[in-house]
Amino acid sequence: MTSIALCTINNTARPIARLCQVSRAAHGTADFHSYSTLRKRAFLPGGKWSFIRAGTRRMSHASPGRISLGRYGKGVFLAAGAAAVTGVLTAGVSHFQRAEMATKVSTVEEEEGDIRERCKSFMSLPVTDIRVLEQRKDAMSARMEMLIMETQAAFCKALEEVDGGAFKVDRWSRKEGGGGISCVMQDGKVYEKAGVNVSVVFGNLTEEAAKQMRSRGKVLKGKDGKLPFCAMGVSSVIHPKNPHIPTVHFNYRYFEIEEADGTKQWWFGGGTDLTPVYVDLEDATHFHKTLKKACDKHHPKYYPDFKKWCDNYFYIRHRAETRGIGGIFFDDLDSPNQEEAFNFVKSCAKTVVPCYLPIVYKHLNDSFTPEQKDWQQVRRGRYVEFNLVYDRGVKFGLATPGSRIESILMSLPLTARWEYMHEPTKGSKEAEMLEVLRNPKEWI
Amino acid sequence: MTSIALCTINNTARPIARLCQVSRAAHGTADFHSYSTLRKRAFLPGGKWSFIRAGTRRMSHASPGRISLGRYGKGVFLAAGAAAVTGVLTAGVSHFQRAEMATKVSTVEEEEGDIRERCKSFMSLPVTDIRVLEQRKDAMSARMEMLIMETQAAFCKALEEVDGGAFKVDRWSRKEGGGGISCVMQDGKVYEKAGVNVSVVFGNLTEEAAKQMRSRGKVLKGKDGKLPFCAMGVSSVIHPKNPHIPTVHFNYRYFEIEEADGTKQWWFGGGTDLTPVYVDLEDATHFHKTLKKACDKHHPKYYPDFKKWCDNYFYIRHRAETRGIGGIFFDDLDSPNQEEAFNFVKSCAKTVVPCYLPIVYKHLNDSFTPEQKDWQQVRRGRYVEFNLVYDRGVKFGLATPGSRIESILMSLPLTARWEYMHEPTKGSKEAEMLEVLRNPKEWI
Repeated sequence: MTSIALCTINNTARPIARLCQVSRAAHGTADFHSYSTLRKRAFLPGGKWSFIRAGTRRMSHASPGRISLGRYGKGVFLAAGAAAVTGVLTAGVSHFQRAEMATKVSTVEEEEGDIRERCKSFMSLPVTDIRVLEQRKDAMSARMEMLIMETQAAFCKALEEVDGGAFKVDRWSRKEGGGGISCVMQDGKVYEKAGVNVSVVFGNLTEEAAKQMRSRGKVLKGKDGKLPFCAMGVSSVIHPKNPHIPTVHFNYRYFEIEEADGTKQWWFGGGTDLTPVYVDLEDATHFHKTLKKACDKHHPKYYPDFKKWCDNYFYIRHRAETRGIGGIFFDDLDSPNQEEAFNFVKSCAKTVVPCYLPIVYKHLNDSFTPEQKDWQQVRRGRYVEFNLVYDRGVKFGLATPGSRIESILMSLPLTARWEYMHEPTKGSKEAEMLEVLRNPKEWI
Repeated sequence: MTSIALCTINNTARPIARLCQVSRAAHGTADFHSYSTLRKRAFLPGGKWSFIRAGTRRMSHASPGRISLGRYGKGVFLAAGAAAVTGVLTAGVSHFQRAEMATKVSTVEEEEGDIRERCKSFMSLPVTDIRVLEQRKDAMSARMEMLIMETQAAFCKALEEVDGGAFKVDRWSRKEGGGGISCVMQDGKVYEKAGVNVSVVFGNLTEEAAKQMRSRGKVLKGKDGKLPFCAMGVSSVIHPKNPHIPTVHFNYRYFEIEEADGTKQWWFGGGTDLTPVYVDLEDATHFHKTLKKACDKHHPKYYPDFKKWCDNYFYIRHRAETRGIGGIFFDDLDSPNQEEAFNFVKSCAKTVVPCYLPIVYKHLNDSFTPEQKDWQQVRRGRYVEFNLVYDRGVKFGLATPGSRIESILMSLPLTARWEYMHEPTKGSKEAEMLEVLRNPKEWI
């Protein structure tokens, strides 16, 4: 939940369900029904997923050895990430096909595509006016907005396909600039609560606030103390009903700040992590292997370093246990260059569905006992503790006047439980889970 | 939950159920069964309560007009309170009798009593060895420990009488000095979760830590930078099952620090507040009137000032609503003198049962719908948000390595719920509650 805060600082949050219906007049784009049709068309039959090559342009990745990884291993974890320059927009439409678990994941290929056309597959129109996105299609802010919109759509559609229910789409705007799109499915067939948020906000930061938003606390010089900024991200938390289906969280974000002399500071942040209620070695291995594959294409140190960072970040200190079995987490990524960093983030974003959906399908019909449900609820309580006590994104959001609280706290489960002195029976499956949370493992 | 933190800083928390069984050998006192018998004997038949005059000594109270109240109205709210000197131990055994709601509350009278005899009515032996309490019976620390133990016992017994269930009594010790007694009843007939904590801890504070523990941030000079301190308190949160029975919280605490030159700084803190799920004007009036009566005996400004402080303190800023309908809250109370301050705290502590129990009995058999239960669960979620995000005692406790987490988080409900974009129907009973939480009322 680290960057749900990106959809905050919103004094005039105006949720509009299915905005596409509202804004089509202004933009001349298709209405909600045509989006739905397109969404249906985007799916091929079958229950397991991977992204396939749909275009021809091969992205260039970071060169191993060129990046210094030392600084992000020092335990400085801040919530918001990345600042922008311009680039070449190459993100394309994603398609899905049958795939076996832990195979053929995320060959990050894309096709150049018409922005207006690509927008039709989104859950809502983008936050930025389509004409502006078209005009600025080479700017990193536009490319990242298209990526987060696509990530939201791909994930929501994959989840809807499993559940049979539909996401409620709330669109909100921010007085000072920007807004967001919150997609929530509550009390569905499969999900207790599923939320997928996009936010794109801009405005001016004070020098002090800008310093605090960056892990390294770099001093930035503003014009009259003010720094124009742009922040955007996609973030999601899925809490399934069945205790054998784990909770997943991911978040990918981009931040840019313009200094007085016109210099642009930018950085990316993000991560994907899994919170099961019971240990399933196959699930854990699949999840981490899929992430590693995405990371390895960009730098051999990304997976081990970001895996460790994830274990450190999602740590419930007062319980001396991690929130889940981890995944990857990174922040303040501005190397080796903007193009490579963006490509890495894109690989990660496109890995969300193949990381998680096979696990959902695998456990869809698992039976469970009331005791297993109770244990899930106790773990949900721990999830709440982490999110309210430690998560920097949530803390930043709650402390910011005018935040859109419903989007920030969308990450909380529908239900949770706190039992006094709860301790699993020795040798039980619950104790096995706790052991893993107390002593994070290497899964691959 | 402001001072559950007092039972923290505990590196070697060792819960021992019904310590009385464990420690009787050391102290030569009665075992658990004799405590139970005594507890039963302490009750008179009937369901509504007030304290009656059981002794002859009249306590002297603070003189109205002598105390400057301005400073505690400035929004400086810290968790732990009060530091000690010596005094005369006069706290007596409490008895209960039938009483009509909002009548004859808290005639704070006591009898001089044998410490060993009084201890028999407690939920467990006191934290401090009885022989030490006997030797130091005139010291404020001993008097306060007897008061908090008595308050715990009186409240637990009153709650057990309603529920029919029994509290689980966990006793824990702190390596550096002191310990606590946590009484919890979970999933009872009436209560979803009921917790009543006592803690008595001592040791050395750094000058910086000592400064932070006091609202006014007074600089204290320690010997070699260290300040011997003693902190104790009783705190409780009761979450009933029936949505028509409100949640109650109270906490009374005492703090003392010894400076290098032997000067003792001391102060008290505390409060009692109610969190209903539905507005019941009669309940709210009874609750506040009972508190006001206790306050008025000591200073005419106590109730209005501490009522306002309570509304300000239990404010969920990100929701722009209070946690409940308030009550009283104060901290850093060291005037007009120690005896008067203690008498005020004693009045408050003895008002807990007559404040709350009549309300419990009134709604004991109220019927409720699943929708009303859901609304209760949503409000429970808000309770969790306040306690984890804002409560200074909880924050202090969670941030302190080695805290006894189970005692700190005992305040969390057994179950809670977070619904996305939950908004009660206009004109509904739920909307009426929300309106009161958004605009705190004067109840009397």
